[in-house]
Amino acid sequence: MEVTRRNYKDSLNTVYSAIEEADFLAIDGEFSGISDGPNVSALTNGLDTPEERYTKLKKHSMDFLLFQFGLCTFKYDQTKSKYIIKPFNFYVFPKPFNRTSPDIKFICQSSSIDFLASQGFDFNKVFCNGIPYLNQEEEAQLREQTEERRNQHANGVGTPSYISPSSKGPAHVPEEHKDFINRVIEKVEALFTNSEKTLDLEPCTGFQRKLIYQTLNWKGFTWKPLKQKSKVDDEERKRREQQKLEREQEELNDAVGFSRVIHAISKSGKLVVGHNMLLDVMHTIHQFYCPLPEMGVGLFFFFFFLMFQEMITNTSLAELEKQLKEGPFKSPQVETAEGFHSYDTAQEQLHEAGYDAYITGLCFVSMANYLGSFLTPPKAYISARSKLVEPFFNKDHVLYVTFPKEWKTSDLYQLFSAFGKTLSCLISLLSL
Amino acid sequence: MEVTRRNYKDSLNTVYSAIEEADFLAIDGEFSGISDGPNVSALTNGLDTPEERYTKLKKHSMDFLLFQFGLCTFKYDQTKSKYIIKPFNFYVFPKPFNRTSPDIKFICQSSSIDFLASQGFDFNKVFCNGIPYLNQEEEAQLREQTEERRNQHANGVGTPSYISPSSKGPAHVPEEHKDFINRVIEKVEALFTNSEKTLDLEPCTGFQRKLIYQTLNWKGFTWKPLKQKSKVDDEERKRREQQKLEREQEELNDAVGFSRVIHAISKSGKLVVGHNMLLDVMHTIHQFYCPLPEMGVGLFFFFFFLMFQEMITNTSLAELEKQLKEGPFKSPQVETAEGFHSYDTAQEQLHEAGYDAYITGLCFVSMANYLGSFLTPPKAYISARSKLVEPFFNKDHVLYVTFPKEWKTSDLYQLFSAFGKTLSCLISLLSL
Repeated sequence: MEVTRRNYKDSLNTVYSAIEEADFLAIDGEFSGISDGPNVSALTNGLDTPEERYTKLKKHSMDFLLFQFGLCTFKYDQTKSKYIIKPFNFYVFPKPFNRTSPDIKFICQSSSIDFLASQGFDFNKVFCNGIPYLNQEEEAQLREQTEERRNQHANGVGTPSYISPSSKGPAHVPEEHKDFINRVIEKVEALFTNSEKTLDLEPCTGFQRKLIYQTLNWKGFTWKPLKQKSKVDDEERKRREQQKLEREQEELNDAVGFSRVIHAISKSGKLVVGHNMLLDVMHTIHQFYCPLPEMGVGLFFFFFFLMFQEMITNTSLAELEKQLKEGPFKSPQVETAEGFHSYDTAQEQLHEAGYDAYITGLCFVSMANYLGSFLTPPKAYISARSKLVEPFFNKDHVLYVTFPKEWKTSDLYQLFSAFGKTLSCLISLLSL
Repeated sequence: MEVTRRNYKDSLNTVYSAIEEADFLAIDGEFSGISDGPNVSALTNGLDTPEERYTKLKKHSMDFLLFQFGLCTFKYDQTKSKYIIKPFNFYVFPKPFNRTSPDIKFICQSSSIDFLASQGFDFNKVFCNGIPYLNQEEEAQLREQTEERRNQHANGVGTPSYISPSSKGPAHVPEEHKDFINRVIEKVEALFTNSEKTLDLEPCTGFQRKLIYQTLNWKGFTWKPLKQKSKVDDEERKRREQQKLEREQEELNDAVGFSRVIHAISKSGKLVVGHNMLLDVMHTIHQFYCPLPEMGVGLFFFFFFLMFQEMITNTSLAELEKQLKEGPFKSPQVETAEGFHSYDTAQEQLHEAGYDAYITGLCFVSMANYLGSFLTPPKAYISARSKLVEPFFNKDHVLYVTFPKEWKTSDLYQLFSAFGKTLSCLISLLSL
């Protein structure tokens, strides 16, 4: 399912219930770039310790934008003996919420953009229709602002910042607002000259409100008398206050936007599977939660699928998927839930985040089920919550190696390439 | 005319002849952002000297990307007494030319992107189909690389870099190349075992060449004997060399890409008109020529249309265009050349660079013609090359003002806003 700003609110319950019912989740991100310093292979050097890799990525990758977030939920259906999957592609963009909200700057790397373009990526869906988001600090600030404005309002303090002290001429009213402003001015004047006792203003935008204040100000009215002239009765006023409160709350939720999906994933406590996942996890935390800490202290963990070292020689996602279809692995049976786009692994759609998440999940299922083949009697299906999988979570593996002294770094690198770089398979518990 | 990577080469002659025949040119750029530091209004503070503004823009604006370049050529038709215009919209993107070419990083500012999105900007045309470009240094480097490769080739030095010293196993040949590689290997083996005397290789990509080298290498062949076995006669070899040379030259021209249009504008020596033009000119130099100098020493000049200070109170492009349709100005007569998209000023398409360039040109014509009204007898048409317009080129105006001591900066700012900020109208001679 493709989720943009346009259908985001209507899709939210579908997303929540897919997460809620899932046995595990697979995720994948697409970015506006990878490195603003060393080239990509130096940045993801397979010889680096997790700490070194974290520090490098934090320094050189975080100013890029995660702009497509793929989520694929996997729920095992006992009666069908297969997984029912629900893939989602979220397009994400930090559209400024209002004039005071942060104007995010992010870097684009032309090689990454060019690569995505060659894969048919639709940039308009990101830049024109991306779902907005806020991190926790931005969300708190916005709540505070709204709260303050509400209090000021309740205390009868107007919004004097609307009136520029140096505006000495009439406000310049754009053509499209002239009718509206004239209607308001007539109503205000009627309060004084006629027998009118109430002033019922139509709903208006902040800009229109500014125009009203400026025009009235220039005509010799000020906002204080205007306020005193308002004669709407108390009950009506309360009803409107309540409506306004609800509208503000909805606007706030809209601004938090995609971060709500991440909050739901985090709260679910479900196993989250990824491929070369460190970058995805770091961007997810950085964009939707908070600045990254100096080191990933307890925030998240990852490990290498060392046991498959002999069997899997190339673990780029496409190759991984091919190898996990062949013996001794078994291709898992999956079915796409009704109403969701059905992916065909024969027709590769790699580098769409939702598809990559789906493939990653398939790989995880193959690997987990393979563990079951060692049981007596062997088990064909191993749950994501099985004790059998658990030893692989939250562990860093340390490798001690001895090697001939004439070996070069490149030889070492080649030996270990199956674990590091694009060749390693990371699994993480997003335990925020 | 919309020009992307797809139709760029076919359009080049049309662009060149439009520039060649024009009386003057109008340009406009759209950017991925404006400021990575102070907010936009602080960056384009009307009170700054040109030097201050240049320094600020150089520091805070140059890491953004100029990704749409609008050019509108104006040619006066004496018999019709009107200008014939040719508007172009170029989409521009620094697609890496090859693996060794610079991987450009640029910043995006979410407010700018969001603004362009709201105007219907098509980002896919930039990121998927943007015309590539090189600055002068990059072009020189690429020419040097090509030259070096050619010389190595002529001296019989192969391309040992294709053969990784640590590749000890068979090359991994992707499925889609297996047939091709097998055919080549068979041919090479036939050279030694059969009576075959020539080895006629099919054209192949660099990647296929690498696979051939790796596979042969692993099979115990090295490229030296392979070369010696080649028995193509001299004439044929020369013909192929010539073809290769031409192909390389074409590839080079493709890589220089959009910079060729800028070179043509510069070489033409024509008057170039812009609106708030400093940023356009700086980006143009920075992206398509060379790093910007500390100060704009002699590279370009600009001036403010001071004389219109009393008449034009708001010179945002849309307002400027409206005011210049009213007395004492006269709307100039224009006609769109055949085969070009005809803009309708009644249906605004502001913030498409080609349209903005067109409107800017119209404004210039109105202002230039207005100068003619002071002649005795008055002249309705003033050429862009007229001596009457010349005093306004290449001049910085200095203003001495006295003002009441109770005035604040904002009052001063308001007084001079007609010259600075969005309110100033800059004209430049792009005399690179």
